[in-house]
Amino acid sequence: MNAPYLPPSLPEVTQRIIPAEFLVALGARFGEQFSTAWVVREQHGRDESAFDIPPPAAVVFAHSTADVSDAVALAAQYRVPVIPFGVGSSLEGHLLAVQGGLSLDVSRMNQILAINAEDLTVTVQPGVTRKQLNDEIKSTGLFFPIDPGADATIGGMSATRASGTNAVRYGTMRENVLALEVVTASGEIIRTGTRAKKSSAGYDLTRLLVGSEGTLGVITEVTVKLYPLPEAVMAATCSFNSLADAVNTTIQIIQLGIPIARCELLDANTIRMVNAHSKLTLREGAMLLMEFHGSPDGVKEQVQTVQDIAAEFGGAAFEWAQTPEERTRLWTARHNAYFAGVQSRPGCKAITTDACVPISHLADALLDSVTEAQEAGLPYFLVGHVGDGNFHMGYLIDPAIPAERALAEKLNHQLVSRALQLGGTCTGEHGVGLHKQGFLVEETGNGAVDMMRTIKRALDPHNILNPGKIFSL
Amino acid sequence: MNAPYLPPSLPEVTQRIIPAEFLVALGARFGEQFSTAWVVREQHGRDESAFDIPPPAAVVFAHSTADVSDAVALAAQYRVPVIPFGVGSSLEGHLLAVQGGLSLDVSRMNQILAINAEDLTVTVQPGVTRKQLNDEIKSTGLFFPIDPGADATIGGMSATRASGTNAVRYGTMRENVLALEVVTASGEIIRTGTRAKKSSAGYDLTRLLVGSEGTLGVITEVTVKLYPLPEAVMAATCSFNSLADAVNTTIQIIQLGIPIARCELLDANTIRMVNAHSKLTLREGAMLLMEFHGSPDGVKEQVQTVQDIAAEFGGAAFEWAQTPEERTRLWTARHNAYFAGVQSRPGCKAITTDACVPISHLADALLDSVTEAQEAGLPYFLVGHVGDGNFHMGYLIDPAIPAERALAEKLNHQLVSRALQLGGTCTGEHGVGLHKQGFLVEETGNGAVDMMRTIKRALDPHNILNPGKIFSL
Repeated sequence: MNAPYLPPSLPEVTQRIIPAEFLVALGARFGEQFSTAWVVREQHGRDESAFDIPPPAAVVFAHSTADVSDAVALAAQYRVPVIPFGVGSSLEGHLLAVQGGLSLDVSRMNQILAINAEDLTVTVQPGVTRKQLNDEIKSTGLFFPIDPGADATIGGMSATRASGTNAVRYGTMRENVLALEVVTASGEIIRTGTRAKKSSAGYDLTRLLVGSEGTLGVITEVTVKLYPLPEAVMAATCSFNSLADAVNTTIQIIQLGIPIARCELLDANTIRMVNAHSKLTLREGAMLLMEFHGSPDGVKEQVQTVQDIAAEFGGAAFEWAQTPEERTRLWTARHNAYFAGVQSRPGCKAITTDACVPISHLADALLDSVTEAQEAGLPYFLVGHVGDGNFHMGYLIDPAIPAERALAEKLNHQLVSRALQLGGTCTGEHGVGLHKQGFLVEETGNGAVDMMRTIKRALDPHNILNPGKIFSL
Repeated sequence: MNAPYLPPSLPEVTQRIIPAEFLVALGARFGEQFSTAWVVREQHGRDESAFDIPPPAAVVFAHSTADVSDAVALAAQYRVPVIPFGVGSSLEGHLLAVQGGLSLDVSRMNQILAINAEDLTVTVQPGVTRKQLNDEIKSTGLFFPIDPGADATIGGMSATRASGTNAVRYGTMRENVLALEVVTASGEIIRTGTRAKKSSAGYDLTRLLVGSEGTLGVITEVTVKLYPLPEAVMAATCSFNSLADAVNTTIQIIQLGIPIARCELLDANTIRMVNAHSKLTLREGAMLLMEFHGSPDGVKEQVQTVQDIAAEFGGAAFEWAQTPEERTRLWTARHNAYFAGVQSRPGCKAITTDACVPISHLADALLDSVTEAQEAGLPYFLVGHVGDGNFHMGYLIDPAIPAERALAEKLNHQLVSRALQLGGTCTGEHGVGLHKQGFLVEETGNGAVDMMRTIKRALDPHNILNPGKIFSL
């Protein structure tokens, strides 16, 4: 194993002592759902981030809310960290056992509990993945739009306040989670929110827990909004002569209030990688991938307006993904961009940026960052949920070369500082985890982070729930 | 003054002792911005609720964030309650000095601080009202959609998580506040959120504070989203033979995903009151008031679909508000429904319900409540943001007759219990205040309310920020 890498902003971490009695008690309670095997621990000791830290001491596979409650109650009794785990697709080190402890795997809690099609809601266990959810509700004529690149779990997506390509029209997990069941730091089971579309009933605990990265509670049930499948869907690609033209087209689409469903940017590097990975022949150059949802006439109207805007910025004629299969292929390729990037440099790790800025500053934020990356000479890919002002540079580093890591971190810091100066955020959808703790303070100030710490200390007095994430205590 | 009325769920309140030194210190710091005059205190000691409680000991008119910070710091030093005050349009007793203390009036903090039209955001001081905001941004071609009945302040609307007639399409304050500046219980000034459209940067303090009813901090600056004025707007009324027909039309509109901008229900009682108050001649019967936003063709398409649905349920032909002036007159009449109701019975007070249910249960929730009110024989009006599943019964009671109050409270309790059984919430948009504390526990359980209390105790250890609201400590 390489020496652990910790970014400059992360305070030194200390592995806590895990009492042997704790492991004995877990074994007695959970039997075959409990493991200390190296391969199982190792698999639960990493995510998609470029960190390398010793794995947790043990793993419990929860099958029910009662399992989660009992595991957390034992952890509380022995003061041992508990790290909720879905499919391991986090990008910022959220899942790493920086203080040791127990990985609490909820991936087997994967039942759809209630489809309320007539209310456009569904209630699921946290281990249901986004693709599974859409498969299981297909017959209702409804769909769940939030789609991070990975086939993440609904629990994990809630915990990181995830979004994806449809957020420009349908919002993020922030807007789409209606209610939660959560196990608190003492093992108590509570419920927040209802299936009503809106509410003013006290503190918005649902939204406090969405995005809390497992540090305030373990999510055991999630109710989310669904949407009617649009009557008409059209998907197109549009090539531009420059990134600037593609970005400026996007800015104008958003400022005009066009209800575009997806508006994704890929740069020439990414298209090359995606073509190789997904066996496509997309033209290598800056490209927007777009999708339009609505009535047949409404979609035609949107397309016409967007095509006119694109033409003003020198965009080529739209190329259409005509059939549902072609559309799926196109969006699968987009979703695999991250993996295509990582595979383009054998043995590399990606350090991924996630800034999001007010739409009028997107060109400034994005183009200067690209120039810096090009000047630095580090391989990278660039994809963006540009309709939201959110974009990702993926710096492809050789993890064995410290200078590459340092260079990527330096570029990331420059990019984030610029985004913050422009009124943006260091993370649009990936979360803070281990990696962005310094950026969080830079973004929101010590006052707000201290308020977060105060809430954390009050709700988790022994600091057992995913400790060391978002901020140090 | 009548004997103070407290609903059964409210624990006994105790007026705290206000040290004379505190008032002296306030007078020295605030001069003419400080008042202990009875008329000023009395005006700040009530809201639109049917409660009657002694007024605060003093009022400070803040002109700046520094004023708010200094006032709260003094209150913290002397352990005196601070109740933020906008225009006094709360409905649930939020503004009442149940433990005595200082009313902190922010209505003079009424500047628009930054219009970022190109990003569809605006930053305002908390005393800006919703009408003022829309007047001041008129030239940008943008608008702010959230519209509670009263011309409330943006600060107050944030604090109660308000919504209104446009929420069915544009969401509530929950979805539309991007960032806040807040003075905490110690007088410290913090910032939450950014102008970016989405973020995963740590705990969502913005949404924790939105809807916290002044109990976690005093809001001193709000950044909200704006929307392009739609290219085409059409507003219509549609009369039905029964409430059930109007409600079932609404349910189908929502289930089909039609992006209707406003979908409001008025019953025959309300129409009679509104006609008298606003000098209109609307047909007395169940009526939907609707508005459609979009492109000219898109609006026509929506109208056609909705007219077809309404016809299936026996709805009359749409009557159109043709000009912007006619539309304004129609919506002003709708916004004045509450005041029209109160004026229909001289000397009365309204006890207003605010349940919100999943859309498929709207007919059950609403129609049974109407039957109960009719059987009880208490005068009432009924209006509803029915597109959201949210409706208000206003029971018009003579405050001098305790039996009427008791009857209204009993009807309200039956209505809320039914809504909760149907998966709904006791308050869609008015908040908990004094009046719904029992309902909040019934809705969310002791576990969630205890979590709220833990957060409150941690962030406001001396319980000075609007104490006694939402829950007892």
